[in-house]
Amino acid sequence: MTQKNKTAITPTRADDYPEWYQQVVKAAELAEVSPVRGCMIIKPWGYAIWENIQRVLDDQFKATGHKNVYFPLLIPISFLEKEAAHIEGFAKECAVVTHHRLETNAEGKLVPAGELENPYIIRPTSETIIGEAFSRWIQSYRDLPMLVNQWANVMRWEMRTRMFLRTSEFLWQEGHTAHATAEDAQHETLKILDLYTRFANDYLAMPAIKGEKTASERFPGAVSTYCIEAMMQDKKALQAGTSHFLGQNFARACDIKFLSAEGKEEYVWTTSWGVTTRLIGGLIMTHSDDNGLVLPPKLAPLHVVILPMVHKEEQRADIMQYCTQLADELRHVQFDRKNILVEIDQRELTGGEKAWSWVKKGVPIRIEIGMKEVQNTTVFMGRRDKEYKDRISQTRQEFLATVATQLSDIQNILLARATKFRQDNTVEINSKDEFYDYFKNGDGGFAYSHWNGSAEIEAQVKQDLNVTIRCIPKLDTVPETGKCIFSNEASKQRVIFAKAY
Amino acid sequence: MTQKNKTAITPTRADDYPEWYQQVVKAAELAEVSPVRGCMIIKPWGYAIWENIQRVLDDQFKATGHKNVYFPLLIPISFLEKEAAHIEGFAKECAVVTHHRLETNAEGKLVPAGELENPYIIRPTSETIIGEAFSRWIQSYRDLPMLVNQWANVMRWEMRTRMFLRTSEFLWQEGHTAHATAEDAQHETLKILDLYTRFANDYLAMPAIKGEKTASERFPGAVSTYCIEAMMQDKKALQAGTSHFLGQNFARACDIKFLSAEGKEEYVWTTSWGVTTRLIGGLIMTHSDDNGLVLPPKLAPLHVVILPMVHKEEQRADIMQYCTQLADELRHVQFDRKNILVEIDQRELTGGEKAWSWVKKGVPIRIEIGMKEVQNTTVFMGRRDKEYKDRISQTRQEFLATVATQLSDIQNILLARATKFRQDNTVEINSKDEFYDYFKNGDGGFAYSHWNGSAEIEAQVKQDLNVTIRCIPKLDTVPETGKCIFSNEASKQRVIFAKAY
Repeated sequence: MTQKNKTAITPTRADDYPEWYQQVVKAAELAEVSPVRGCMIIKPWGYAIWENIQRVLDDQFKATGHKNVYFPLLIPISFLEKEAAHIEGFAKECAVVTHHRLETNAEGKLVPAGELENPYIIRPTSETIIGEAFSRWIQSYRDLPMLVNQWANVMRWEMRTRMFLRTSEFLWQEGHTAHATAEDAQHETLKILDLYTRFANDYLAMPAIKGEKTASERFPGAVSTYCIEAMMQDKKALQAGTSHFLGQNFARACDIKFLSAEGKEEYVWTTSWGVTTRLIGGLIMTHSDDNGLVLPPKLAPLHVVILPMVHKEEQRADIMQYCTQLADELRHVQFDRKNILVEIDQRELTGGEKAWSWVKKGVPIRIEIGMKEVQNTTVFMGRRDKEYKDRISQTRQEFLATVATQLSDIQNILLARATKFRQDNTVEINSKDEFYDYFKNGDGGFAYSHWNGSAEIEAQVKQDLNVTIRCIPKLDTVPETGKCIFSNEASKQRVIFAKAY
Repeated sequence: MTQKNKTAITPTRADDYPEWYQQVVKAAELAEVSPVRGCMIIKPWGYAIWENIQRVLDDQFKATGHKNVYFPLLIPISFLEKEAAHIEGFAKECAVVTHHRLETNAEGKLVPAGELENPYIIRPTSETIIGEAFSRWIQSYRDLPMLVNQWANVMRWEMRTRMFLRTSEFLWQEGHTAHATAEDAQHETLKILDLYTRFANDYLAMPAIKGEKTASERFPGAVSTYCIEAMMQDKKALQAGTSHFLGQNFARACDIKFLSAEGKEEYVWTTSWGVTTRLIGGLIMTHSDDNGLVLPPKLAPLHVVILPMVHKEEQRADIMQYCTQLADELRHVQFDRKNILVEIDQRELTGGEKAWSWVKKGVPIRIEIGMKEVQNTTVFMGRRDKEYKDRISQTRQEFLATVATQLSDIQNILLARATKFRQDNTVEINSKDEFYDYFKNGDGGFAYSHWNGSAEIEAQVKQDLNVTIRCIPKLDTVPETGKCIFSNEASKQRVIFAKAY
């Protein structure tokens, strides 16, 4: 294999997609497996992406009237028992705290001691404990809507874990709101769904389809669950965010009542919604290539990396001065209403090692500066959305004048590519045979097909093909009705089938 | 009791300081006790203060080269066993996860199931699990210094809890660094101590004394522990932040070695340091008065609240228009390099109720706008650092021109008051009798006295008076030597004794 064809990541996507994913995570230094079962260590580069995600979403939550709070990590077991469906969903896979001390036993080993009369679980989600507070905080219609959010860690004892995509502990935000009417709560649920959809499109450059989950995929305790679904490069779907209309289920379970303007005591209507560190997994699988991570500039921890190429020691001062000035000027350029983030890489590495380390980390723009650039007042630039070999020389002035536009370009190109990829792998399927063929013999994709609403058919398809209904898309137009391809019964609209993470 | 003498908080500080504290926390809606033993719910107003603290410190950590990471919540028990002193310090009071599932038993109750072969504890601090990663991440001197920080929740099973000051779960940041030499690690430890001191002074307006802890108050596993100590209004000390020089203790325990520039394999030198939500408790107890919370403007979630005073419905439109324009103009004024934060309170409450709710929440500046203000183009302003009755009328123009200066004034006045209070309650004590008198009969304060370094004397004083050595102050000048007031033996410098939280 010649250097030209060699990829920075082994295996390639085509060779072994799941292993490629793990290798990208490793090569970009995003995260690593920890000594705690199913939990990951998020490394600086991965955490910086999460901080950028947080900053954008947090601003948007606040702009729409939500306030941040912090509730306890532990939840009394009795709280979980309040909502029947909720128990079923979360009791099965949670970390249980049963003791509050360690003691050294006869063999000199530390063992649990101080058994708790009432054990706790580590929150898998916080509806019940926040509901308890809402029942005290909400008295009158004047207290509504109650709009809170928390950024927190949660834990679900997952059997099979994969970094960012499914880990026992993960980081997320969970919004919890209470409203006076069903309409207000529904409106909130869909407002957040729209916010998530726009965030996925505009920041992650990950085109997302919004829709409703079928009953079998609903959040335990919800009346309806909405989601955004995106297509990864292996044509599988990734659920990237959910927004739940909880009706009065949790209001009844937690006894959250209010005195209406008419003086009547009523239960509130609640919602909850969240996105998690899984978004980083989605970002990776949407854009990255066989050379590693590709970052959408709007969420990149670093926009431009400057690589001094010093071949002779006597050139160092000139090259470094040129790099430092360039960095200073770049830091005064605005992209996405913030100053451009720049770093000069002064590590003692060869030029190639340096450049490739940033390719693998997905930095949008790399600038190499050697004596040639200093003498000609130019920059030698590589863009992460292009091939490594497609580097070009630009005058320093031209580069400074266009760098913000180039970052926007990269952002747009990534979104356009992902959108095209999804379109190319989306089909309308109108018969059961064709459907089974599509998922059995091909690579799969998103199949839009008619379905009669039957949970039995859904279960059968899942059993036969490991294919699920990702969502009933929320359309802007009146949906096309038709006949279910499995039962020939009436169907209100096409739904999206796919294999999924 | 006349209205004039009535305070918004009952009891007053003089009547019952601990209960006054709880009532301020409640009246300002900062936090409340949760159904989880020893844990609090941080409400929006309290959390917004924490977010402001985080933002300032996070920027400063990053500016000094630290990168954020995230490590697992759970720590394998075997990790705790690595460092002997560390076990002693943390095994006694931690939450232990022993099961990973709940099951419904014969009586229909949820009970722990799926016992873990190797239980975990919820992190009380993360030296051991971060140390394990450092042992893999650090190979050569080129990897040093390694400077990371995480914002996280931690848990210590405290017996007596008080909101913000001591809770079983709390929020904090924990910095962890590794260095090639003892000097570098010492330098880092003290650099962070300085950063904390400046933050306490410049943002919390809480003058803090930096110093070293005695051996008996050292962090379990540290070679030396440095701290900042502040005086609360009941003259007790509050430890507000700590920075630990860990020597090579954790490097040996976690096997963190590096190849030096000279090609020798050596253990690294590590540090750790943290501040917690306790800072909010310090802020409350430093500035608040018998009318509730008083916020230093630099950390206030809101700088100016505008209170429309509508007595007749037909005036509403004019008053609201005036308020809205004023708010818009205020939002363009800069304070502490950010736009001023303004809110218009449109709740259906009487003017007095409205105004007092913001007094209790500590908002630096309140503006009342009625028809008189609209007609005269004035504002009626109250400042939280002054008496409620000392409200003044200002022209709108003058107010807009001076608002940023007024906020700075308030910030400076709070620091000056707290500094004076500490000075007024600080004494040099030169004999044991005087010392015992001071703490037995008076209200206490900070006593600077000579001490011979004996842990026995320290223990005796603690037993007799519940007074501890808060720190051995780090002075800029050569310390005054003397004779220990308890033993008459030689003393290198005066240390600070006080009762403490």
